[in-house]
Formats: sequence, structure tokens, C-alpha cells
Amino acid sequence: MKIICFVVNSRANYGRIKTAILASKSNKNLHTVVVLGASGLLFNYGSIESIMSKDGIDVDFRVYSVISGDTPELMAKTTGLAVIELSSIFAKIKPDFVVSVADRYETLGTVLAASYMNIPVIHTQGGEISGSIDESVRHACTKLAHIHFPATTQSARVIEQLGEDPKSIFVTGCPSIDIVKQATDVPTSQVLSNYNGVGHLFIPENDYILVSQHSVTTSYLNARDQIQQTLSAVQKLKMQTIWLWPNIDSGSDAISKMLREFRETNLENKISFYRNFSPEDYVRVLRNSSCIIGNSSSGIRESAYLGTPSVIIGDRQSGREHGKNVIFVDYDSSEIFRAIEKQLSSGKYKSSHLFGRGDSGQKMIEIIDSLTPRIQKVFHRC
Amino acid sequence: MKIICFVVNSRANYGRIKTAILASKSNKNLHTVVVLGASGLLFNYGSIESIMSKDGIDVDFRVYSVISGDTPELMAKTTGLAVIELSSIFAKIKPDFVVSVADRYETLGTVLAASYMNIPVIHTQGGEISGSIDESVRHACTKLAHIHFPATTQSARVIEQLGEDPKSIFVTGCPSIDIVKQATDVPTSQVLSNYNGVGHLFIPENDYILVSQHSVTTSYLNARDQIQQTLSAVQKLKMQTIWLWPNIDSGSDAISKMLREFRETNLENKISFYRNFSPEDYVRVLRNSSCIIGNSSSGIRESAYLGTPSVIIGDRQSGREHGKNVIFVDYDSSEIFRAIEKQLSSGKYKSSHLFGRGDSGQKMIEIIDSLTPRIQKVFHRC
Amino acid sequence: MKIICFVVNSRANYGRIKTAILASKSNKNLHTVVVLGASGLLFNYGSIESIMSKDGIDVDFRVYSVISGDTPELMAKTTGLAVIELSSIFAKIKPDFVVSVADRYETLGTVLAASYMNIPVIHTQGGEISGSIDESVRHACTKLAHIHFPATTQSARVIEQLGEDPKSIFVTGCPSIDIVKQATDVPTSQVLSNYNGVGHLFIPENDYILVSQHSVTTSYLNARDQIQQTLSAVQKLKMQTIWLWPNIDSGSDAISKMLREFRETNLENKISFYRNFSPEDYVRVLRNSSCIIGNSSSGIRESAYLGTPSVIIGDRQSGREHGKNVIFVDYDSSEIFRAIEKQLSSGKYKSSHLFGRGDSGQKMIEIIDSLTPRIQKVFHRC
Amino acid sequence: MKIICFVVNSRANYGRIKTAILASKSNKNLHTVVVLGASGLLFNYGSIESIMSKDGIDVDFRVYSVISGDTPELMAKTTGLAVIELSSIFAKIKPDFVVSVADRYETLGTVLAASYMNIPVIHTQGGEISGSIDESVRHACTKLAHIHFPATTQSARVIEQLGEDPKSIFVTGCPSIDIVKQATDVPTSQVLSNYNGVGHLFIPENDYILVSQHSVTTSYLNARDQIQQTLSAVQKLKMQTIWLWPNIDSGSDAISKMLREFRETNLENKISFYRNFSPEDYVRVLRNSSCIIGNSSSGIRESAYLGTPSVIIGDRQSGREHGKNVIFVDYDSSEIFRAIEKQLSSGKYKSSHLFGRGDSGQKMIEIIDSLTPRIQKVFHRC
Repeated sequence: MKIICFVVNSRANYGRIKTAILASKSNKNLHTVVVLGASGLLFNYGSIESIMSKDGIDVDFRVYSVISGDTPELMAKTTGLAVIELSSIFAKIKPDFVVSVADRYETLGTVLAASYMNIPVIHTQGGEISGSIDESVRHACTKLAHIHFPATTQSARVIEQLGEDPKSIFVTGCPSIDIVKQATDVPTSQVLSNYNGVGHLFIPENDYILVSQHSVTTSYLNARDQIQQTLSAVQKLKMQTIWLWPNIDSGSDAISKMLREFRETNLENKISFYRNFSPEDYVRVLRNSSCIIGNSSSGIRESAYLGTPSVIIGDRQSGREHGKNVIFVDYDSSEIFRAIEKQLSSGKYKSSHLFGRGDSGQKMIEIIDSLTPRIQKVFHRC
Repeated sequence: MKIICFVVNSRANYGRIKTAILASKSNKNLHTVVVLGASGLLFNYGSIESIMSKDGIDVDFRVYSVISGDTPELMAKTTGLAVIELSSIFAKIKPDFVVSVADRYETLGTVLAASYMNIPVIHTQGGEISGSIDESVRHACTKLAHIHFPATTQSARVIEQLGEDPKSIFVTGCPSIDIVKQATDVPTSQVLSNYNGVGHLFIPENDYILVSQHSVTTSYLNARDQIQQTLSAVQKLKMQTIWLWPNIDSGSDAISKMLREFRETNLENKISFYRNFSPEDYVRVLRNSSCIIGNSSSGIRESAYLGTPSVIIGDRQSGREHGKNVIFVDYDSSEIFRAIEKQLSSGKYKSSHLFGRGDSGQKMIEIIDSLTPRIQKVFHRC
Repeated sequence: MKIICFVVNSRANYGRIKTAILASKSNKNLHTVVVLGASGLLFNYGSIESIMSKDGIDVDFRVYSVISGDTPELMAKTTGLAVIELSSIFAKIKPDFVVSVADRYETLGTVLAASYMNIPVIHTQGGEISGSIDESVRHACTKLAHIHFPATTQSARVIEQLGEDPKSIFVTGCPSIDIVKQATDVPTSQVLSNYNGVGHLFIPENDYILVSQHSVTTSYLNARDQIQQTLSAVQKLKMQTIWLWPNIDSGSDAISKMLREFRETNLENKISFYRNFSPEDYVRVLRNSSCIIGNSSSGIRESAYLGTPSVIIGDRQSGREHGKNVIFVDYDSSEIFRAIEKQLSSGKYKSSHLFGRGDSGQKMIEIIDSLTPRIQKVFHRC
Repeated sequence: MKIICFVVNSRANYGRIKTAILASKSNKNLHTVVVLGASGLLFNYGSIESIMSKDGIDVDFRVYSVISGDTPELMAKTTGLAVIELSSIFAKIKPDFVVSVADRYETLGTVLAASYMNIPVIHTQGGEISGSIDESVRHACTKLAHIHFPATTQSARVIEQLGEDPKSIFVTGCPSIDIVKQATDVPTSQVLSNYNGVGHLFIPENDYILVSQHSVTTSYLNARDQIQQTLSAVQKLKMQTIWLWPNIDSGSDAISKMLREFRETNLENKISFYRNFSPEDYVRVLRNSSCIIGNSSSGIRESAYLGTPSVIIGDRQSGREHGKNVIFVDYDSSEIFRAIEKQLSSGKYKSSHLFGRGDSGQKMIEIIDSLTPRIQKVFHRC
């Protein structure tokens, strides 16, 4: 029986690997170990252990690694601390595989620890193109990992260019699409009743937009200005809005502070603020929304399958492969405003299978089950 | 005035960056900060601070990060700890550039810390191909770094394939060749008189071979067997031998232990053991030797310029670009023995400029002096 | 010139050492180095660097050591991380003395690092008696420290019982009293105008009580219930209230969450919430208040000098030496309510000099200036 | 079933807790967890896992915390790192008790982590008096611990003076005496045949002295000079000698280096060097020796029961309670020489039960089995 260890570091991480974890738990050749770390453990960023528990997924190890503060050195320190803790866990459980998800900065800690310990590393969502430190982290992870599960064919080609053995690359689609496919229809008002939001009281009959905009670490000192442009556009729109708190990257404190100040001083706005949703509930809120605005990758990924119009702001997703439902704009309130108006008038787009067909988690586990990876990596010239 | 911070982690590191540090100190636009870390601080692996001091290079910060023990999880932990310490130093000195050397596992800690902190990272000797975890570390560093100083044109092409902006790649050669060029001729016996060796007393009139064989981290449990093959071949050869202790990678304790046992039980052997030489003295010992054996990259790099015959054992340097002076063999005592005999009869090779012409350090600093790097990295398709 | 290094870890720390730092900076035999760490750097717990800056105190080193989360293992981890970072700073600056303040859990990290490095440690406010982990931390610090500056004669006797050399003990009073003495009279409404509070809008003409209640780490799982009793009593009182957010001990997230929920759901309450004040402003708010409630040590210390009536709840300050202005009660809303009523009717008490006369900072520095401490500690039997 | 967790950090630690661990494993009310850390894991300091395994004691968790180098900041860093790792282990296993042994600097890491996490801490060998940082560490541990198992009545009185609740103090004797009592008689030559020594070949018929001298951390820069005095005395004595390598305190590298140099340059000496023995074998070597010299606490403790003459050098054991078999001398070769001569002529002393009667481990476990400790500590005035 092979031991497979999943390391989940955030709410976004979880949605992108959940169906693979469930498939692993159903596979009798695999013993599944789940490590929850980083912002995934923190109330302020949406502790997800209770959501996982409802999904039937127990957490075996917890890695508290987030060092408080809002300077980029803490992204480094947090990752360093995670390496120290994870290496002890890996030494204890001796996994046959470690699965690491996507491209958040803590991810590199997981991949570094496992690869240094000669444990085969499976990396999902490699080969994508974006901005922020994520762009560097993602490709560095690819160069340390042994098996690659890119979401798209185009990403697979990038991984090949990076010198990886084509035999180690499997286009599986993204497990987040599995959840999009499986999530039943539930009205947004009913979804919201299970969460504690603050601000505007959501009105079920009215349409709404969804905003999710994170800090861009490589220009984190501008986080405040960047978010100000979005806020202005949304205020001008005067439409009911659900706004998600940012994740834990450097600059997020500045964003949170600004949103809080806005909330205290603009009592007449129509914005409801929420910390977090379960992956399924997030899909529901996104599906029922008229448009998603910001720079969350769900504005690229899940929204492609759902056909939800999307306005992507700034350079966090710059260069990212995407469907027809996306308009890219600069940090400019009038540009943002115009793009939202255009998307609202366009309405829903046709569903795209660019990021998967809803069977990715199962596919991943079937591949893992049959793998005998080689530890020593060899560069493939193309 | 720009602040440039060099992080040096080992004796090998130092030889490969020394002339660049000296050139930086001579440049009046640059304020040079030197961080010495990892095995570079440890007596057992050749503490190099006194050597640096004689070269006129003061150490500004010391990073004690090596966690004792001989399991690969400690390579991970050591790197994690280095990230924690280095990020504090970078936050304190706010460098305009961080220079990180080559591909040892601690290197990734330097590059991770600086890149997460939006500090432009200059990485030397990227794009080379080898075995061991170094192969993964080197390319991961490339994907996090902003400016690349590969030693060869072929390495530059690999870096381009990795998706780096061609404008960020400068073929500079390797500063270790600068030292090879500058080091005056000194008889080996005179060099050795400045160091405390153990074992066989070196006989000036007799020829000798030089052995330097490190652990291969990706198969570190075989370190003992691998070194046994070399020891057998060297014993059979009955030739005077200078043997260097291994560096600090996982498996090095096993090698050291074995060498110690060999030394205690084979009192009639002709092997002198040394911990360390200054970069110049190492060049002298290598230049005066009849052949270098093992898997040190100096058996590829410095020996190419010197024309010293080289026998490279096993897969640590597998795939590495090399001159005509190198024979690659497997971990097999008779294969090793035959290769050494062949090299001894062939004698010195013609000098090759494959890894530089002796002006690399100066070149690097001139380029840095004129740089205005961009923090946000962008993938270049080829 | 001797190097003296002050390590400040929280808003409370700062108030208790500020006048000593200023006196040190005025002393020409001393070179003053200031390290700011732990919650002292965090916005949510009242980042104090800007306050220090206004006081003319520059921060030389920052130690981000707070690991996010709300379990007691994180108090341990945070302290461990602080030890790692502080030892690097001490090795860099080579202080002749390290000054560590009072008894918060991070304090032990400072004292451990310095004493292991053979640096004379000066510990303030040793020998006091209380509850929470502070009780253990304080005495452990005493046993590692070389010089003791207790606030009171009774505390000095406890330090002697602990086996310390009587010659190493100096009753200096507490520098927090220096600030109490120096702080000019300013109306509370004017003080508040410089801070961002939330909740009830403060009415200048009305009297108010001040609440400051922290988690008790040794029973942190009850934090929520404990605070509930206080909230109920305060609600029943219907008096204008200024409530300070709790510090960063385990259990503080639970308290903060509860206060936030209360605030969202009890819109008619009379409570204004504030994160933090400068030490002087805190004195003003305390001086102008009718009563202080909770378990902050300022309800013992500063309030003794000011004569402000104080109601101390639960066991955090259990056994603490105190003036006549204090009533101790259990976690029981009606007991709390009755004690507040009693205090409100009693009014101001006579000023007590139990914790000092307002010259403590100056005294400390004069003593330090004349010290030649011995590194090897010797147990004194009594 | 209660979970009891023993943390063992060195070879010396193990001998002082082994019989308690075995008694715990035999007790059906207790689930025993063993953590091995620090120098206990390192080959150079006598990895003890294989010895434990032969004793039937499995290691459940390994804590690699020793950071390489020979400066005292690394004792601090090592302890900080241990706190980080141990707190994760304690959070995972949720022990009802943590047992920490004696007074090495890492011990404080164990006690800090557990006490901050509200886990009842049992501390052995508190209340003793000595020099070095051990003196500070030991009493700091007492002030954080909840239950005390001092070896002697006099130590118990010191713990009471330290303000501990008399009900929490149990004089158990020291488990190292259990081993002294149980260890069968085996000739030293037979013992040595199981270990790899270097240097002089032991001659069974000849008498010998045993030397074990560690660095004194509070004057570690003098380690070299201190050991030189002992070496000179031993050389002058010209008696067969078994010399143990020092433990891992700051200064030990200097001692090791000096011993190595001595060995290489004095080929005619009569000193055999050994790294380590199992606790029983150590007792045998000590029992069969004519005198023990140095500053190991076994020269106080085990030698008291055995009646082996002991010469204690310098201030590491200064003030330590001891039997009649001990002569204390300064770092002075002629003083040392005279004391050894005196002890050799005096011969064996009468056995003393000062440190126990050989039933300590069993006693400890019986007490633990019946304990319900209180987490909140309260200072007891005497």
C-alpha cells in the first residue's frame, strides 16, 4: 500500500485538490495522509478544517507556519518555517508521493522539502502563465517536481519547454472543475445564510456582482491604490456586490484595512463582505453572479466552465490562458467600470472545457496508482 | 550607490565568486555586503573566513544554518532555517541585488528569500546539466532569479529554453577560471605545508593523483558503496594520492566515516587526507596532479582550462558539458582503475576556454553596474 | 562605551521601559540598541513603532516572530523563533547588556538567548506574583538573568528567596510610573480623537469605565466564558465604556471574535473599542476613567499611583501585590457588577507609591552604568 | 490510559532516565512515547538509538535540532529550533505528562514548550547546584515545571526555596544509580571490544584512569587552556587512560580539535579515546577504573555509589553536593596531578547512597501513576 500525502495550504488550494483527495481515499491501494497548513488553518483567512471534515476528509497534521505581519520577508520566513515543519512530518510518515497544489508561495516549501528528501513530488497546475511571485514559484516547483498534472494542453507544452520529461506530464484538467460540475443549484441567499458576512444585507431578488481581488506580491506596496480603483468602479456601478476578503499574500493587510475603513465610512454602499465559502458554495455564488471582478484565478478557471462573465484587473493573471468570457483591464476605475458594464450587457457565455471536464481528481489518482517515478531528474532539451 | 549582497555557502562557492566580490569592492558605484553561511562557517568542511580575510574580504553577516545529522530531511531543514535568517539580513540591509552562486541545496534558500522579497536576484552558473539534487536546485534557482550569468553558451541556451528573457542572460564564463589563470606556480609540497593533513606523508618528488568525491544526494544511501569502488581502484593503483574530505551533502557522514576507518586500518596506504585549500592552492594542487578522480565539478571546470586529465565517476556530473580531458565511468572499481591508467598515460590535455578566459568576475560586475532589472518575471516561449 | 540592547515585545512592554530607554540614550557611556519584536510590530495589537518614533526612539532591529493561530503551541513556537532571530542579532551587535521586560511569554526567549550567549541579562519586574503562564515565565527569567530591577521591596524579597545574589537586586520601581507622573492632563475625548475606535461614539461630558481583559493562558479554553461574564456586567451597568482589544496570548482570538460578534449584534451598547494608545495617552484615559475593570496589570500598577478604582477579575493577577484601590473578584457577572458599583461609589483613592515614585528609568540607567556583572551564576541559600 | 512522553537529548540524559522509561513501559496505565533529540541523534556524540533499541526502547519521534558550529549563539538557536519541533510533536500526541531530564541547555526547550502548552512537566534532578549555564537552566526548568523528582533531600530543599509547592516535590534518587546497581561485572577489556576507540591499545592487565571533561559554557573561550592542564597532568602520570570525547556544549569543538592534535603528535601516549558507551558499559568502565578525572557529573553521582575516587576539575560542578570520594581542584596541571596521585593511593571509597539506592525509575513511575497535577503554578513563600 502506497502512502500519498496531500499538502493543502489555503481555501483556494482545497477547492483545487478536494476531488483528488476523495478519489485517493476511495482507492484501496493508497493510504491517504492530509496535511493542512498556512492560511488554511487561520480563521481570518477562512479556516477550512471544518469544511474538510464535512467532506469526510480528516486532517492528519497541522502546520502553523504563517508569521504575522505584512512585509514580503514574511512570505519567505513563512515558507522557511513550513520547510522545517514539513520535513519532520515527511520523515515521520515516509510518503511514497507528496502532492502539492498550484503556485502559492508556501507551495514551494512543500516541493522543496519533499524533493530534497528524495520523495516523488506530484505538482498540479504547473505550466500556467501569470504575474505576481506565483509566476516564479510555479515554474520553480515544476523544476523540483517529478510528476506534473497540468490543467491544459497549453500548460503541458510550457512544462515540456521547461525541460521536463514528456512521460512525466499528464494533462488532467483541474479538480476545481469537478466541483463546478458537481455543485447543485442553490440560491445565493440560501448559501449566504450559512456564513457570517458584514456590511450590506443581501437582497435575494436583486442581481449582484462578485469581487475577489488579491495583492500582487511583486508590487505589493501599490495594493492600496490598486484596490481603490476597483472600489471606485464598484461604487459608481451602484449594484449589489459580494466582496471576498483577500488571501494572505503581502499587501493583504493594506487591502483589508482599506476595505474596513471603507465599510465604516460608507454606510450607504451595497457591498456585503464575506471571508470564505466552501468550494461548492463558492461555485454557487459565482454561478449565480452577473459578473466576477478582480484578479482571482477563479475568474479565469471556474468561470470558464460556468460561462460567468469576468473582468480581470491588473497583472496578477497577466498572460494566463483563458476562455472567451474574460476581459482584461488595467488598474483604472473607468476602464474597470466600462468592462463591467460591457460584461453585464453581454450576459452568460457558452461553457468552455478549457480547464477540464469534471473528472480530473479521479484521473489524477488513477495515474498515481500506476506510477513508478524516478527520483533523479534529467533535463530534456526541446 | 547600489548595495550588492553576495551569499557564499561553501568552499566551492567561494572559489566561484571570489573575483566577482573583489571586482565589486573595487567598483565605486557598489557597496558590497558579504554573507557567509552554511558549511562555509564550519571547521569540518573548511571554514573559509580566514581565507577570505587574507583575500581582503570581510564577512558582514554569518548564517549558521547547518543542522547536524546525515539524513536528507536535514538538507531541507537547513535550507528552511537559512531562509528565515537570510530574510532578516536582507530586510536589514535592503540590497539592490543579491548574488547567489551555482547549485548547492542551500542556494535555493538564498534565491527564494530574495525573490520573495522583490530583490533582484543574480544567479551564476545556471543552465548547466548534472545529476544529484543539484540538477533540480539549479533550474529552480533560474526560475526564481532575475539575471543569469551562465558560464557557457550552451548553458545560456538551456536558460533560454527554461523561458527566461534572453535580455536577462549574460554569458560571463566562470570566475573559478579567473583564479586558475591568476594562481602562480607553487610546488604541491610547499602548498601542503600550510595545511594540516592526516595520513600518508606527501613525497615531493613523486607524482600524485587528486581525489574529490562527494555524496550524490538522490542516491545517498549508496554513498558508502560508491566510495568503496573508488577506494579499491586507488588502492590497486598504489600511487601517491591527495584525497579531499567530502562536502556536507547527505551521505557525507557515511563517506567520512568510511575514509576514517580505512585510514585507521590501512596504515600502509599512500593517501594523504586534506580538508580544504584556498581557491588558489586548490588550483595549484590540481594543476600539479597527474589526474583528478571523483565527481567534483572542478574535474570538469578548472581541469578543462588546466588540461588536467579527469576521471568522473557515477552520475553526479551526468550530462555535464565538458572538455576533452574527461572520461566518464560508472561506480565500478575496475572501470575506474582502467580510466585512471588511460589518463595517466595520456598526460596533460590542451587548455580549453569552455568555462571562461579568466575575466569573468570583472565582466559580471560591469554588467551589474549597468543593470535595471524588472521584478515581475515573464515567461518567454521559444 | 558599553552597548545596551533593549528588547521590546508589546505595547505594555514599551510603557514599562520607555523612560529607561530615553535615559540610556542620554547617557554618553552607553550605546543604545532597540529591538522591537512580537506583537509590538503588529497592527492588530497596536504597532508601536510610530509611537516610539514620536518619542525619539528609533528601532534598530525588527523581529517578526508571531506565528498566527490561537493554540498555545504557538506561544511556544513564537518564542522558539524569537530565540533563533534574537541570537543572530545579539551575535551581530555583541551587547554588554540585554534588558528584558517583565513576564510575557516572549520575554523568556530574549532572556534565554542572551544568557546562553554569556551576555549579562537585566530583568525588570521580577519577583512579582500572578497567575497565567506569566507566573512561570517571570521566575524562569529571574533564574537566567544576572541583574534584577524589581519594582517593589516585596518583589525583591521573592527574588532573594529564588536564590539570587542580593547584590544583584536593585529595587528601582517601575518605569511605567514615570510616565504616569509625567503625562499631562488631557481630556479623554481629545485623546480619542487621535485614534480609530469602533462602536459607540464617545460622549465627552459622560463618565466612563475602562475595560482591559486578556486571556489567561493556563485556562485559555475558557477565555470566551470568562469574557462573557465581564460583558454581561458591563451591559447591565449601562455606563459609557472604553474597551481595549486583548493582547496576543492564546485565547485572544476567541475574545476578539466574541467582542466583534457582540458589537455587530448589540448596536445599542455604549462601548467604544480601541486597539491601542501611546503609554501617555493610556495614562490619560486611565486617569480620567471612573474605574478600570479586567485583568490588565495596569489595573494594579498605574492605577495605584493614580488612585483609580480597579476591579480585577479572575486569576491572571492572583496573588499580585497591590494598593488599596483594588477589589478582586471571580469570573462572575453579578460579583463583577457589584464590585464596579462599589468602586464607582467609593471614587478616587489616595495615590500610592508602591510601584515607584516616577524616577525608575533614570535609576536603572545609573545602576547599569556602574555595573560589572558576573556571568557565572551562583545559588544563594536563604 | 495516560500518555507520558520522555524527551531524551544526550547519552548522559539516557542513563539518567532509562529505568524510568522501562518502568513506564511496564505500567499498563501509561502509554509511553519516546522522543530522541539533539546530540542523542548524532554519531559524533554517540548516537544512542541503537543502544536504546537493544534495551527494548523504540524511538517514536526524532528531533534534529543541533545547529553546527562552536559559538554559544548556537546553543540558543538549537534550543529555539527544538522548541519549534517539540511543540508540533506535543500537539500531535497530546501527552498527559512530559518528562524532562536534568539540566543540559536543550532541556529548557522541552520544558518551555510543554509548560506553554499547559502540559504538566515532570523535571528530574532539579535543585542541584553547579557551574556552567547548567546552573541557570536547571533552576529555570524548575520554575516552569509542575512536578519535581530531585535526587537528594538537599536538592529538594533548594527546590522548596525556589518557591515550589512542597507537595509537588518527590525525592526519588537518580535512575542512573539504578543502572549502577544492576550492571553486572564485566572486565573493561571485554567492554571495549564492542566499541571503536582510537589511540593507545588498551592493556587488560594494567590499571587505568578515566577522563571525561566537558566545556564550561560560561567560560567556553578558555576550553582549550582548561583541557591543556588536564592533558599535561595525565601525560605526566604515564598511566593507562581511557578518555571520553566531550559532549556538544560550546567549546567542545576546541576540545575535540586539541585532543585530535595531541593524538596525532604524541604517538607514544597511553590514552585510548572513546566516543561513547551504553549506560551499563559506562558503569563498568567507571567501576573498574582507579580514578575518574574531569568534570562529568558521573564523577559525582555514579562514582559516589561505586566508591570510585574522583578528581573534579574547575567550576563546572562547583557547589555540587557530593560524597567523600571527590577532591575538587582548579585548572592547574600540578594540582590535578597531585590530586590524582592522592586518589590513587587512597583506593576505593565506601559506597554512598547519597544519590539513590537503585530503585529510582520504579519510584518515579509509581508517583506519576497517581498524580493529578495542577497547571497554574503558585509561588510558595518560605
